[in-house]
Amino acid sequence: MTKRIILDTDPGIDDSLAILLALASPEVTLEGLSVVHGNSSTNQGTINALSVLELAKAGQIPVFKGCELPLVQPSLLAPETHGDQGIGYAKLPAPQTRPQVQKGSDFLIEKIMSNPGEITLVCIGPLTNVALAVRQEPRIIRNVREVFIMGGAIRHEGNTTALAEFNSYVDPHAAHIVYHSGLPITLTPLDVTYECIFSPDDLGRLLKIDSPVTKFIADATRFYMEFHDEYQKIEGCVINDPMTLALTFLPEICDYRELYVDVDISTGVGLGNTFADFYNYEKKAPNMKVALGVRPRMFMELFLERMEKLAKSLS
Amino acid sequence: MTKRIILDTDPGIDDSLAILLALASPEVTLEGLSVVHGNSSTNQGTINALSVLELAKAGQIPVFKGCELPLVQPSLLAPETHGDQGIGYAKLPAPQTRPQVQKGSDFLIEKIMSNPGEITLVCIGPLTNVALAVRQEPRIIRNVREVFIMGGAIRHEGNTTALAEFNSYVDPHAAHIVYHSGLPITLTPLDVTYECIFSPDDLGRLLKIDSPVTKFIADATRFYMEFHDEYQKIEGCVINDPMTLALTFLPEICDYRELYVDVDISTGVGLGNTFADFYNYEKKAPNMKVALGVRPRMFMELFLERMEKLAKSLS
Amino acid sequence: MTKRIILDTDPGIDDSLAILLALASPEVTLEGLSVVHGNSSTNQGTINALSVLELAKAGQIPVFKGCELPLVQPSLLAPETHGDQGIGYAKLPAPQTRPQVQKGSDFLIEKIMSNPGEITLVCIGPLTNVALAVRQEPRIIRNVREVFIMGGAIRHEGNTTALAEFNSYVDPHAAHIVYHSGLPITLTPLDVTYECIFSPDDLGRLLKIDSPVTKFIADATRFYMEFHDEYQKIEGCVINDPMTLALTFLPEICDYRELYVDVDISTGVGLGNTFADFYNYEKKAPNMKVALGVRPRMFMELFLERMEKLAKSLS
Amino acid sequence: MTKRIILDTDPGIDDSLAILLALASPEVTLEGLSVVHGNSSTNQGTINALSVLELAKAGQIPVFKGCELPLVQPSLLAPETHGDQGIGYAKLPAPQTRPQVQKGSDFLIEKIMSNPGEITLVCIGPLTNVALAVRQEPRIIRNVREVFIMGGAIRHEGNTTALAEFNSYVDPHAAHIVYHSGLPITLTPLDVTYECIFSPDDLGRLLKIDSPVTKFIADATRFYMEFHDEYQKIEGCVINDPMTLALTFLPEICDYRELYVDVDISTGVGLGNTFADFYNYEKKAPNMKVALGVRPRMFMELFLERMEKLAKSLS
Repeated sequence: MTKRIILDTDPGIDDSLAILLALASPEVTLEGLSVVHGNSSTNQGTINALSVLELAKAGQIPVFKGCELPLVQPSLLAPETHGDQGIGYAKLPAPQTRPQVQKGSDFLIEKIMSNPGEITLVCIGPLTNVALAVRQEPRIIRNVREVFIMGGAIRHEGNTTALAEFNSYVDPHAAHIVYHSGLPITLTPLDVTYECIFSPDDLGRLLKIDSPVTKFIADATRFYMEFHDEYQKIEGCVINDPMTLALTFLPEICDYRELYVDVDISTGVGLGNTFADFYNYEKKAPNMKVALGVRPRMFMELFLERMEKLAKSLS
Repeated sequence: MTKRIILDTDPGIDDSLAILLALASPEVTLEGLSVVHGNSSTNQGTINALSVLELAKAGQIPVFKGCELPLVQPSLLAPETHGDQGIGYAKLPAPQTRPQVQKGSDFLIEKIMSNPGEITLVCIGPLTNVALAVRQEPRIIRNVREVFIMGGAIRHEGNTTALAEFNSYVDPHAAHIVYHSGLPITLTPLDVTYECIFSPDDLGRLLKIDSPVTKFIADATRFYMEFHDEYQKIEGCVINDPMTLALTFLPEICDYRELYVDVDISTGVGLGNTFADFYNYEKKAPNMKVALGVRPRMFMELFLERMEKLAKSLS
Repeated sequence: MTKRIILDTDPGIDDSLAILLALASPEVTLEGLSVVHGNSSTNQGTINALSVLELAKAGQIPVFKGCELPLVQPSLLAPETHGDQGIGYAKLPAPQTRPQVQKGSDFLIEKIMSNPGEITLVCIGPLTNVALAVRQEPRIIRNVREVFIMGGAIRHEGNTTALAEFNSYVDPHAAHIVYHSGLPITLTPLDVTYECIFSPDDLGRLLKIDSPVTKFIADATRFYMEFHDEYQKIEGCVINDPMTLALTFLPEICDYRELYVDVDISTGVGLGNTFADFYNYEKKAPNMKVALGVRPRMFMELFLERMEKLAKSLS
Repeated sequence: MTKRIILDTDPGIDDSLAILLALASPEVTLEGLSVVHGNSSTNQGTINALSVLELAKAGQIPVFKGCELPLVQPSLLAPETHGDQGIGYAKLPAPQTRPQVQKGSDFLIEKIMSNPGEITLVCIGPLTNVALAVRQEPRIIRNVREVFIMGGAIRHEGNTTALAEFNSYVDPHAAHIVYHSGLPITLTPLDVTYECIFSPDDLGRLLKIDSPVTKFIADATRFYMEFHDEYQKIEGCVINDPMTLALTFLPEICDYRELYVDVDISTGVGLGNTFADFYNYEKKAPNMKVALGVRPRMFMELFLERMEKLAKSLS
């Protein structure tokens, strides 16, 4: 039986790849997307979500615009990482479809409450929509099946400040709400995603198939690779979001620990730092499962095969 | 023409008096109440709101349950100030009516968006519901007529910590969102409310009328007066909330300054401190009108007359 | 019997006036000055201290250079308030005397420990020197006679940020150390100093005496008055520091309350905010006496008379 | 030529081992110890320092009492880690020698300023003494030869809070002062010390020599091992401090990176977190050399050989 999935996303280069991976994976059914500010503005991200769905001939999947701002912090977008449109050097036609009228967080609430125990929520952007939904309707906490979150840098250095990963830094208060909500969370932090580099060779393999999908991946990731090279001396790029999606049906990619995880919402240098209490100084029960070990090629092979299959099926 | 009013409230002793004052004042039409955690839990406060409306034979006014927790901070209720039920020593019959199904913040959004430029929002509890509504539907900012907020202690000492007033302390992040949202705010801080003491003499005047309303006021405020005596050496009690309601139709009670006001969301000793930048060090435009001067007896006479009239009309 | 006084100072316009007032007051003997960064750099302030002493023919009083930086915060000087040299438009000849070799905080320790129960410490700059001395030799806490501190804004708005007074803001960590040290403190916050305006009329009265001292006061305060006019719409200027000195021998100028006072050392908007726990929420014993009421003309008449006398005696 | 060394220390089990290693190593000359609060109180730590020196027949080396409190934070000692006396289960005779009269930070200043470019400072406790010295006499920054600091947990989890190592947590403000002072620092964080476990086997090897020194090591570390077992599931114990001392003459034990390192002095969950800006987001020049890789047995063999030699030489 396939998993019924909602993607809460801020597309975003690697968000786009996660959307494509969801569409290419028979283990999951993508039932809708809620869009949030982050890599791009909510407006731009909504356009991107619609365009990527149409690129994969999946324009029937509903897209919901979510919150346009972080809960408390001022807006912080990432054009230097994802390009002005949020999809690197890629250009997609303006979407033919339109977003739904319902708000993103209302969609989360309605979908989860109407399908108790059924919905897997995959969050690959700042957690603003999810935090709003939790405060609006706390009963989603017991009615969602599971929540996969891309975010945080536990022992790894941050990708936005020395200590903070982007999604956690952009809306640390939302992360704080979600982490402490009681939701059944599996966290994918930079500790594992930075072990999985999508390399120029990987891209070369995909480009052997001539297809709008592979061309899109190439144009999107080329920008991303330039960013990683300039700022982090990494050859290739880190595709955080599709790995998080993959864990919903292939959990063996990672090893996990049950940990008490918190996020810094002080006004100091640690703002947005997501960290674990490994030695349990706080005497608190674990509040999530954290991926801390990873088999990089297991994920990458999966990703490449699925993209190849998708590209061929759409040709 | 009367003002169309929504009360966002956490009843609460002085909240109950504000509800009664709204019902007793022909200048305003009370179109609904959204309830929030604060003086009491959201559940208890909802019961109290319904009961107080029924006490005043106004059970037809809809009551909406709002958020049960502060946005980010842990829950903080005030049984030592308002009693275990939130209405001091008063006992009211269990309400015959029930709250609406719609959530408090959804009600705020729908009411304001359906009546652009028409609705006056009076907020006399922590600002959680309003903050949620602002992030869910930012267009309410331009569509609400005006927003009156009881909260903050500008130069005055706090009533919860040395620096923080209760509503700001309970949900400082919500206050931060609301203050910086662009909503057209008039703030009633402790600087003016602590000038207006509801004294035993004032109570004595009301008690000359034998009525369930005056008995309720007596039983509720007696508890409150004991609190003020024990903690703050004040004879009588400070009824913050009805003054805020009164300003909607009798602004002359106070003098105002346009100021840039902020609230401390650090993790330090100043958490929840609402303060004004009098000298404009931050070079920021004013974001609200703040009541800083007050004619105490003008308010108190109004309050007493209205309560007398209400008590008589219900006998 | 006169009080034996050390001035810990960052001259500074009003610091210079405090030095002159000390020299003009037979009730006190000025036994030395320790200089600290603040209104001016420690180097410039040391030159100013020496020059002002020489102006008053008191070059024999020893001056000790203290700390050049705040304990933890980066340096913050105040040329816009006190002028590039720290004494407004005044120009004084380069001093003939030189500072002592001993460090400021070492001088504080030695003087206090050699004269147990004898020394009154008057602190009119950031508290860096005093904090260092307290940590170096905690026994000064029991051996100093009393400590008068100019600093903080209890209910009054700050003169540096919305919440913080200059001395507290420049070195909040030093203030935190000193406030919580057990030293017998009397605090003079902006709440009283801002009630005492040195007006153009007051200056005019002094200028009836033709003297280098009155000329210095005129040139120094003219700059200060321009600052107050531009930033705070005050005609005249607030001379915080000489009032603090005056309280050592004429305490009747102010009314006091014993209070628990703390200073915000968070990294948020409240940094440097010195505040009192009026309602004793923290259940802590008072740690200082705070001047909260003032008789402005009692101080101003004293100051003017003493300056007139000094000017005449030096002519 | 031997290195001339000052140990700034809070003995402390592993501090005691560092003292013994210094005495056993011909590459260094231990010229004095300044004691600071931390593992033990300054008083107890001073007694321990004197006793350990006498145990090794080195009672002629001067010991200076330093600061008794952290700069700003309240006192935090570690009896659960180091035992009530600070040396585990070991009992040493009361020392025959006494500490010097001069204060610890004054000793640091005098020794460094009298021997420009000559003195290597090895700091294995909270940095209070060093911070005081830096603010008292900033010229030591250019006159010290080098500074080795045991402290911080860069990527490693903390040993006191989830994020903070003990020395940094006890006096984060002192660490902040020292890290940003310009001192030529080599940092030994938990990232390398936790790779070097002093195991029961290692202890067994030492105990083959019957000597007061080996008995002391056994009694001291037995307590430490019990702590590590109970709190961190580590068999053996982590001896942070002697490794730091060893790096002064055998730097090859570790690999280093030049990094910009900061410490969190906010009032939030990150207080005392020492972290590195690996990707240089802050565009700041490196302020220290950080040991991030280690050859554990290279250190442990050195330590064991030296302890064996010392034990034999004293028999």
